[in-house]
Formats: sequence, C-alpha cells, structure tokens
Amino acid sequence: MGNSFGTLFRITTFGESHGGGVGVVVDGCPPKIPITVDEIQFELDRRRPGQSKITTQRKEADRVEILSGIHESGVTLGTPIAMLVRNQDARSHDYEEMKDKYRPSHADFTYDQKFGIRAWQGGGRSSARETIGRVAAGAIAKKVLFELWEVEVLGFVERVQSLATSIDPLSVTLEQVEANIVRCPDPAVAEQMVELIEIIRKEGNSVGGTIRCVAKNVPAGWGEPVFDRLEADLAKACLSLPACKGFESGSGFAGTYLTGIEHNDAFRSRDKERGTKDAYTTSNNSGGIQGGISNGMPILIRAAFKPTATVMREQETIDSNLQDTTLRGRGRHDPCVLPRAVPMVEAMVALVLLDHALRQRAIQL
Amino acid sequence: MGNSFGTLFRITTFGESHGGGVGVVVDGCPPKIPITVDEIQFELDRRRPGQSKITTQRKEADRVEILSGIHESGVTLGTPIAMLVRNQDARSHDYEEMKDKYRPSHADFTYDQKFGIRAWQGGGRSSARETIGRVAAGAIAKKVLFELWEVEVLGFVERVQSLATSIDPLSVTLEQVEANIVRCPDPAVAEQMVELIEIIRKEGNSVGGTIRCVAKNVPAGWGEPVFDRLEADLAKACLSLPACKGFESGSGFAGTYLTGIEHNDAFRSRDKERGTKDAYTTSNNSGGIQGGISNGMPILIRAAFKPTATVMREQETIDSNLQDTTLRGRGRHDPCVLPRAVPMVEAMVALVLLDHALRQRAIQL
Amino acid sequence: MGNSFGTLFRITTFGESHGGGVGVVVDGCPPKIPITVDEIQFELDRRRPGQSKITTQRKEADRVEILSGIHESGVTLGTPIAMLVRNQDARSHDYEEMKDKYRPSHADFTYDQKFGIRAWQGGGRSSARETIGRVAAGAIAKKVLFELWEVEVLGFVERVQSLATSIDPLSVTLEQVEANIVRCPDPAVAEQMVELIEIIRKEGNSVGGTIRCVAKNVPAGWGEPVFDRLEADLAKACLSLPACKGFESGSGFAGTYLTGIEHNDAFRSRDKERGTKDAYTTSNNSGGIQGGISNGMPILIRAAFKPTATVMREQETIDSNLQDTTLRGRGRHDPCVLPRAVPMVEAMVALVLLDHALRQRAIQL
Amino acid sequence: MGNSFGTLFRITTFGESHGGGVGVVVDGCPPKIPITVDEIQFELDRRRPGQSKITTQRKEADRVEILSGIHESGVTLGTPIAMLVRNQDARSHDYEEMKDKYRPSHADFTYDQKFGIRAWQGGGRSSARETIGRVAAGAIAKKVLFELWEVEVLGFVERVQSLATSIDPLSVTLEQVEANIVRCPDPAVAEQMVELIEIIRKEGNSVGGTIRCVAKNVPAGWGEPVFDRLEADLAKACLSLPACKGFESGSGFAGTYLTGIEHNDAFRSRDKERGTKDAYTTSNNSGGIQGGISNGMPILIRAAFKPTATVMREQETIDSNLQDTTLRGRGRHDPCVLPRAVPMVEAMVALVLLDHALRQRAIQL
Repeated sequence: MGNSFGTLFRITTFGESHGGGVGVVVDGCPPKIPITVDEIQFELDRRRPGQSKITTQRKEADRVEILSGIHESGVTLGTPIAMLVRNQDARSHDYEEMKDKYRPSHADFTYDQKFGIRAWQGGGRSSARETIGRVAAGAIAKKVLFELWEVEVLGFVERVQSLATSIDPLSVTLEQVEANIVRCPDPAVAEQMVELIEIIRKEGNSVGGTIRCVAKNVPAGWGEPVFDRLEADLAKACLSLPACKGFESGSGFAGTYLTGIEHNDAFRSRDKERGTKDAYTTSNNSGGIQGGISNGMPILIRAAFKPTATVMREQETIDSNLQDTTLRGRGRHDPCVLPRAVPMVEAMVALVLLDHALRQRAIQL
Repeated sequence: MGNSFGTLFRITTFGESHGGGVGVVVDGCPPKIPITVDEIQFELDRRRPGQSKITTQRKEADRVEILSGIHESGVTLGTPIAMLVRNQDARSHDYEEMKDKYRPSHADFTYDQKFGIRAWQGGGRSSARETIGRVAAGAIAKKVLFELWEVEVLGFVERVQSLATSIDPLSVTLEQVEANIVRCPDPAVAEQMVELIEIIRKEGNSVGGTIRCVAKNVPAGWGEPVFDRLEADLAKACLSLPACKGFESGSGFAGTYLTGIEHNDAFRSRDKERGTKDAYTTSNNSGGIQGGISNGMPILIRAAFKPTATVMREQETIDSNLQDTTLRGRGRHDPCVLPRAVPMVEAMVALVLLDHALRQRAIQL
Repeated sequence: MGNSFGTLFRITTFGESHGGGVGVVVDGCPPKIPITVDEIQFELDRRRPGQSKITTQRKEADRVEILSGIHESGVTLGTPIAMLVRNQDARSHDYEEMKDKYRPSHADFTYDQKFGIRAWQGGGRSSARETIGRVAAGAIAKKVLFELWEVEVLGFVERVQSLATSIDPLSVTLEQVEANIVRCPDPAVAEQMVELIEIIRKEGNSVGGTIRCVAKNVPAGWGEPVFDRLEADLAKACLSLPACKGFESGSGFAGTYLTGIEHNDAFRSRDKERGTKDAYTTSNNSGGIQGGISNGMPILIRAAFKPTATVMREQETIDSNLQDTTLRGRGRHDPCVLPRAVPMVEAMVALVLLDHALRQRAIQL
Repeated sequence: MGNSFGTLFRITTFGESHGGGVGVVVDGCPPKIPITVDEIQFELDRRRPGQSKITTQRKEADRVEILSGIHESGVTLGTPIAMLVRNQDARSHDYEEMKDKYRPSHADFTYDQKFGIRAWQGGGRSSARETIGRVAAGAIAKKVLFELWEVEVLGFVERVQSLATSIDPLSVTLEQVEANIVRCPDPAVAEQMVELIEIIRKEGNSVGGTIRCVAKNVPAGWGEPVFDRLEADLAKACLSLPACKGFESGSGFAGTYLTGIEHNDAFRSRDKERGTKDAYTTSNNSGGIQGGISNGMPILIRAAFKPTATVMREQETIDSNLQDTTLRGRGRHDPCVLPRAVPMVEAMVALVLLDHALRQRAIQL
C-alpha cells in the first residue's frame, strides 16, 4: 500500500528500477485540458540522471509513453492518464554485493524487514526512479493549475551544505533556475555549489541541502480545516520524497524565535481593478497559509534533503544473516540529489495544490 | 472534508468551540484492548486550558464521555469509539469584535474565503478545542501501541524561543516531563522558560518554540514505501496541528550540513536473548526511519510551533468589507502553546504509528 | 473499520444499542445550506420504533441533538455536523439469553467470530439503531440535493411477501407514502399488507419484501466511470442496510428476460424552454443510469429485505461453546422491517447522489 | 475518479479501447506469493473476445505484460504490480458513425454529458476492454486467496434469457464450467444456450441472463460491520461491471417470499478433527454472510446482466446536437455478454474477499 497520493486528483505510481519500467496512473484529471507529451517530457528531462556532470552518470533517456487518458487531439479525456517509462541501462553487477548486504542509511534493511523479500537490483522500489511517475503526473498538475487558475509553481536549490543563496524566492524565474546545472537561480552561488559538488563527487562523498518552492496566484480558500490542511499535505508531499528529512511552511523553524507581535502578518486592503478591493498581508510569515487554508499570498515552503546515502567508501554494515561486515559503494551515484529534486518538489507541490483546488470546487456554492 | 485521519485506525473529529461540544469517532480500533476513561482523561488534562499560570486562564474541565465502542467491562469492542466533551465557559463577548474583523495570522479570513460563513465565536472549528478529539483518540492509540508492542511515545518542550535544553531525548521520562508546568524535562531550563512565558504573557505578547517527540520499541517494518512513508505521515500529522510550521525527522535540517560519510548510520549486530542476533545502528541520524520504514531504532521527530497569533495589542487588519481597521486582542489566551501541545504531538505520533502497525499486520505473512 | 460512507460527502456512524447513544458525523457538507433540527427529526420519526402497531413496540423517542456544524442561524457551516441520539428504554433482560446463544440468521455469531467480543445487549452495533445516524445524515443530504438541484428522493413499500402494488413509481407522492402505517402508496394493497403483518406478528413470525425508490430531477453526468458507477454505489448503499439481500437498478432481473432490441431505451429530443432542446429516452429500462452515469431520466432502484430474523419461536442454534441448543425469541420485535426501512433506503440513495453531485462539481469546467 | 477499487488490496485500472493499451496497478498485494504470468493469462483468455463462435469476433490476443511488482523468481514483492495489455485490431471505421450519434443504452450520451468530450472509438473507457485490468488483478487475488486460505471462487452462467440450469452451485467444478463455450456447467442446458445465442446473433439481436458465483472455504469473520459489509462490497463489485443491473446475496429476492421461520438458518455443531467442534448452518439462505460478515458457510451471490446494448438494427436516437436521428449497429459484437462475464464476476468477488481478508488480519489479535 501507500503507492497512491491525493483525494480527487489521485496518482498511483508503480515500478522498480529493474523490470519492465516505471510509471504512474493519474485519476481525476479534469477533462479538456490541453497537454502535450513534450510538456511532460520537459519535466522528466529536468529529473533524469546523466543530465550534467554533477548528477549520476547513468544514461537513461526516460522517454515517456502516454498509454491512456489523453485524446489524440491533445486534450485530457477525464479518464485515467497512464504513463510509462521503460527501464534500460541496468548494470546489475553494480548492485550484486547489495543482494546480501544492507547499504547504510538506505532502505535495503527496512524493505527486507517489511516484506521479507526485495528487488535488490538498483534499489528496487526505493530507487529514485520511482519519482519518474510523480514528475510526469506533476507536469499534468502544473498544466491544469496554470490553465484554470494561472497558478505557477517554481522550486530551486537554495542551499547545498553551507552554500546558500539569499535570493528573494518571489523574484526567481524558471529561466534563472534552468540557467545552470545545479538549479540555483543565484549565478555566483550556483558556481560555488557546482564546484563543491564536483569535489565531493571526486571524494566519493555526498552532500545535502535545501530546496525552496513558491506557488504564485493561488486563490484564497484552498486547503481543508483540521487534518488536510494545505501545509500538512505539503509536508507529507515533501517528506514522501527520497532523502527528504525536513519541511518548513512560511517562517518555519526561524519563526519560532520571534514573538507573536513580530510574527503576525497584518492584513491590509488595496484597490483592485474596477473599484473592487483586494486583501493582502504586509508580511508573509504565514507562507500564504493560515489555519491550513490559502490566504491569497504566495505559498512558500522549504524542504531539507540529507546527503545521498550512496558513498564510494567502505562502510560498516551487516548482511542478511545479521553478521557484521563492510560494504563499499560502487558504480554511479548522485553526489548531491538537490538539482534533480527540484522538479520532484515542484511536482509534489503541484499535486497537493490541484487536489485541494478540486476539493474546493466541490463545495463552493 | 479533511476531518478524518488515518487509514486503518481512522479518527474523525467534530465540533466548534461554541455549540454542543467537541469530540471524535475512532474507527478501526482492535477489539479486546483494556482502556479506562481515566487513561483518556489523563491526556485531556495535560491538554486542557487553565491547567497552570502559563496557559490560558479559560476554565474548562473538559470531562470526556465515552458514547460507544468500549464495553462495560472496560475493553474495546472493535466498533467505533465515540467520545464527547461538552463546551462550557463560553465568553462570546470576548469575541464580539472578531465577528467582522479578521485577527492577523488567525484562520478567520481564510475560513470566510473558503466557506463564506464561519462560527466566529471562540474561533469556531479552527479553535484549539478541536484538538480535544485528537488527544482523546491518541490516548487510545497509545494504549493499543503499548499493549500490543510495548511502544512508548513521549514528547517534551525542547525550546521556547531561544531557551533550549540539550537533554538526550532517549533518557527523558514522563515523570520528568510532567514535573513542571512547561513540560521541559530539564529543570533548570524549564524554570527559565516559565519565567520567560510569564513576562511575555504580561506584555500581552506570545512566543513559540519546538517540541521533540520520541517513540521507543517500534519494531522494524512499519511504514509504507513511497507516499505513506512513516516520516511523511508523521510530518502531515504534526503540520495538521494548529500553529505548527515545521517538521524534522531524525537529523532534519541540521543533517543537511553533514556529508554522506558523516551522516550515514552504520549497521552493527549484537547478541540478543537465546543466541539470536539483533541489528542496530551506531548512530541514529535516520531517526529510526529508512526509506520511510521503521528500522527498529527509536523514532525521533521535532515540530516547530510559531508564537500564538493572539496577542493583547492593537494590530492592523481588515474587516469583512475589506476595509482597513485595527483590532486589539482581548480576554484569555495562551502566551505559549507549547506546554499544551506536548500531548497533541504525542497523540498525532501515536495515531500514525498505530495506523502503520495495523497496515503492516495486514500483509505480514 | 467500515463505519464511514462516501467520498466527498462522507458520514461516519457510531454507537451500539446500549451505552451512551448512537449518532453520526457528516463531513463535507457544503456551507450555507439551510437546515433545521425539525427536518432531521421528521426523518427519524419515520424510522423510529413504536410508531405504529405493525412496528416493534419499543418506545424510543429518538430525539436528535445537533452537536456541531450548523450555525445558530440555521445554516450549515461547512464543518462536520455531529448528531447524537441518546439510548433509552433498554431492557437488557430481554437479551440475557443471547449472551451465550447465537440467534439464527442474526449477526451474533459472526461478530463473535470477527471480534472475539460483542456488546450483546440489544444486538450491539448490528442493531437497527445504527441506522439512526444514516437517516439523520440522509435528511441533510436530501435537503442539500433539493436546495442545489431540486432533486427529490422518494421510497415506498412495493411488496410485502406476495402482496405487491403495481403503482407507477413516478406518480407517487410523499403524502401517499405517509398516508398509511405500512408506507405503501396504494391504499388497497396497503390495507392488505397491514392485515398480513398483524397476523404474522401474532404468530411470532416475520415477513420481508421490496422497497422501490425513485430520484427525480437528477441531472445528467452524475456517477463515475468504472468502479464508482452510480448504480454500483447505490447497490452498496442498499446492501449495507440490515436485512437487505438484493438490489436492482432499472429493469434489474426482469430485464434479463428481454432481448436487446426490446430492452434498449431510444433517445429522443424535445423542446425545452426558450428554444433549447432536451434529451430523453422513450423507455427507462436503464433506470436513469447508463455506463454508471445518470442520463437525466428518473433514477429507479429496488431493494429486497429478507424477513426479520427475530421470531418468537423456539429455534435450533448453538451456544458460544459450540454446543447445540435452542433459543426462543423474546420481547419486542419488528414483524416486518419494510415500513421503517423506507427512510433508510431514501437516506442511502440521497447520500450516494449527493456524493456524486459534489464529485461532478469538482471536475466540471 | 472512480477508477480504483479496494481498501487494502487496491486496484486502479486505466486505458481506453483505443490508444496505447489497457491495464491495472495492484497495490497492497502481500509479498512472497508465487504467481506466474500464465496464471494471469489463463483468466484473460477466458475473458478475451473471439474465443468462440458466440462471442464477438474481434481478434485480440490480449497478451499481458507484467511491468512491476513480481520478482524474476516468480513471487510478489509487496510493491505495486502493474500489468499492461496493448490494444490492437482497431477498426475505427466501425465506430465512425458513433462519433456524433449516441448509441441507445450505451454510455455515449452520459460520458459526453459528464466530460464534454469522449474517446468515441470503440467505446473509449466504457468499453468492456476496461475489464482486462480487473480480470488480471482478480487472477492475482484468486491466487493469494488460495495460497493463504484455500479459498476458491467459481462462477458460471446460470441463465440465458429463459434458459436456466438448476444445478447445485456447490457441486460445480472449473472443468465443468470450461467444458463448453457458454460456461454453463449443465451440458444439456449449455447446448440450448449456445443454440439460442447463435440464433440471436444471426438476428442481430442480443440476450442477457444471470451469473452465479460461489466462494468456498471463506473463514468466518471477513467483512466489516455497517457500510463495508461483505455483501455490500460484493454488490458494488458486481454492479460496477458493464451491463450488470442486479445483485442477490444468498436467498436474494426469492427469500422475501418466505417467512422468518422458513428463512432463518439454524446453527448446528459438528465434530471436526482432533476433538474440536465446528459450527455450520443447516440451510444457507444467508449465503454465507450474516450481519455483513462471513459465517464460514459458502458465499453465494447472483448477478444479472442485461442484454448487450449493441444490436445490428436501426434504432431511434439523437446526435450530439440533440437532433432526432437513427443509428444502425455495425461490426462485431457480443450477442450475449455472459460467457465472458464469468471471469469478470469471479475477479470482482475475489478482489472483495481478499480485501476483507487483509482487513481482518489487521485487527485480529
């Protein structure tokens, strides 16, 4: 269980890193939304391995095939959209040793404890390949959000280990993010990040950091009271990504050092088109969400990604007979997951927003 | 929607701060688990207002009535357990001004945007009273976890604004947590926290901080791959609490400053009873969760709570006609939500763990 | 588990026939719908025992208390609507013998097999009292359906054992249904039914029959393809009622004796207001549903209810030690469940329709 | 929405009759269950068109590809099992006329009303091809049920129009069912059925009938009280199949003509192996289900299938502009859906049973 996400816009991913392929079924997409395979492939290309010198050198084209749900005229049918990416470039021998030994801080041990069996090649279901389905589904969610509400979701690498940009997230553009291979919109910091990751890669080590994501033009009223608060679902969305260990909404942990008077976001009114008025807040510590519901301000979140568990060093571990042993990482790996995690975070944020948008449509009179 | 939580152990809360009362229906509780009303009331007493000088001075006894699902012999029936706490001590006049004005950083504005109507007295459904149902349900979850697996869930206040304890979470006992009114198990720091909160209260201001929660004796194998990872569900659980703006699992944000070699948790084996062996990790940056599944080590999370939005100062805001105005908080409020949030976090963690425990039972052959 | 029903308009019932009471939490009701406690009580009065000489003589007023979700001004808030009916008039001694013996064709044996414990007094959770929550929730669903779409749901007793009316379901009015105690809108047949049930009651026996239910003004487009077809959800809704053993949509079993040419419903077009056209079918073997989706014609279903299992005769059975024994029904019982089942069927049909109405709103562009 | 079925053993189907293919993702399958592609293909071959002279003459091999979730060693992994069947043999020109005209009693009109667009070729998502995914998933469910509990699910054609067998369902074997092309285990009646269907086919007409399905060795205790009763979920399962318009559990509609004394199933006890005792009922009007929970007796259900809507005659209908017109069915069609519906009903019954089996495991102490 646990391979589905969402209530009204609901995705189910499938596939191990070995076997026929990986993919996703998207259920609940509104009909008549224009979407092309290129728009989906664009996001998959941002996610795929081998895209630059600082990502894993596995060569996988990750071409997506749309199996259903999109009409030949290029619009959604309202029926399930199934998408498949075939597996290729499998180097099982890189993983041979993992058959019996558990990689430290990977999911090898826990999968074995849970299921009593695992597809050990390439990490099986815990492989980052699983996120292909999310990113493909997220591409559709982003398109629907933009078509129906002009909502834009944009993420970027904010910090790699100690190298951080202090750029204003609201000023960032997709072009800036895609202008360099590390996906940090601050060129000077990006350059340092790339250098650091290259050094780390050569050392066979890895680093982590944070991703910032902003959603603009989200209307007020999305999110459900109590358990399905917008920030609760966003937190789950991010923490469901491999290697994510932390989440912040709005002011997050930093906000806990402020007093209430400092932290509260004052409401003000401003003139809008044709004599109407519009509410806004003079600060945005709430990150666009109050009481779990969007307030019309930009939504701002942050996700923490730990350093990749795969390192090219000998490490202490145990084997499947619970005997102490050592294991040395081999083959190709991502020294830093962050550049490829940007489209993943965007996808998850888009999935949450669209789900809540549809839920709000259901009750809005 | 959004008033239910969980898949197999599923709770649904109801109730505004005004009206007949608040409560919860718990569906999916295993039968024949002994539980007394006193065990539930104990947790509600830890949550209730007026329990000390540093919490809101509202006087609410919050006595729980069990309406169904528990046999007269004191064991669960396997049928829905409904629990009700009547509302009392309503001072509507304290809230009169809020009828038309939106309190900054509260849910007033967003509820109005969402529903076009709200029960404004006392905050309605966004009131912290809603958490009564969670805490009552959490008391049952904690009991089931302990009865079936000896799992213990314990939270404590780790930091109030800048005042933090560095106590080892694994060494903390319930007695230590309950030994002072701020629920920080470090007596010296606790004293400073109480002083700070009293000062803040007198200033009509508020402060936030962090809660740490640990779950011991969780067996390996709980948690589902991909979307319903244990840490994803824990993140959602915490972020669904009022005022929570951040979440960390294991090393969290701090872990992102380490390299992979530093961060990885080495597996080792040790002798257990009767010649069997047991796996453990020499460090626990994973916080007891790898690949979203428990690995048998203690589960460690942290939740950030912003300073309470209610402050006794005049603040800029707008009214329901989107006119600029000011609003001054009145009446009784919590200058710091943290001491009362401890049982809430424990409840949410227990709900997630029990849900996953039952899910694992379903597939384990 | 299994105590909730619906996706977007979702109800959760609770309560045994003994203990504090029975009730329901309704989650997902749109806000600002006017509803009074009298409208809910009206439906509960149609369901309650002791309402006439042909129903059980238990005296239960079944007064409902609204605990939350409805504003003092008489409109829904969009938050969970919790409703409670207290238990009373418990005659445990009537049930004493059932403590150890399983009543034939009741749920006594199966609850024990499932849970290993049961609240045996009054039938516990399998008691018809559980349906109070459904009927109360159904009253709200009916009101929302009428307010937003003028949809009307009406059921009636069509057949008791072999006594059947051939009245046109589309011609039946609520007044006709409520004009007699058996809820058959055909006065001559109703009279015979009442006589039969009285004879059966005096014999300590019981009878079953069928209920017909029609929903008018349902717009085309409600219902989801594949698994959540409108008729699939209606079938589940009916079969989830105590004593229901059969379901038909449209022509049902009788339609299987026709050929396709006879059975197909021809589409025709007719003029509507202001020069627009309207589709209809010249026959309605489809019962208003094609491909699981409403087609704009009246929805027609039929539900079969077996004779009540409680009879005042000595019957062969076993006890909880699996020893052969006999058991004689005692106390008060319904010789025929059908008159009281009418509001239950209406409630379930309304719950399904409203749920699908909201789901359709979510995707309709 | 509505393309998923089940709670713990949950399937999601996808695919139109045109486009890349149709398939299913199975989530929640227990790990380490042996299953081969041949076992799945066997069921698909029972479902596929062109298998005999009385089914549609479309030639589709319907070869299944397992994309994930089954280890190369031939056992389930506990991860999602995705299965794909490619589309072929598409004769769009057969459907050209349907582009603008609605076939009577098909889903053409209602899909258009719901989505505003449809994949009209071959019936799109409402095509019987959608059931490929169900049958493939059902094959896995049947295997798991047999491996873990020796549960056997078997269906057969009981009646075609007025031609019915009165064979005892408990005596029927798979060999008998597969011994003839109509899947009626009574050879004499089967012969008549084949003759009838051939005549009907030549006339361009169609017929319906009933399918009987039995599940043996189901232990007592499966099924959830109240809404997710076993018979409620079975009813939904059957009514979710194309062309199904009626459902009966146990005595069904016929049972409503009996009195309670006649209808009740007396419990008796009998000796089992090693001095233990076993409960059974002397009759089985309950169809193995009491209070929505299995009682250990064979589960017996019946499903009604209307005559296929596709007939080779000119029929009155309307076009997408709501203009009256006529339409004549063309190409290949099933004159009687029943022979191919047998594996579909079995699949749905198996899916329901396994889901409830897993749910019961979760709470059974």
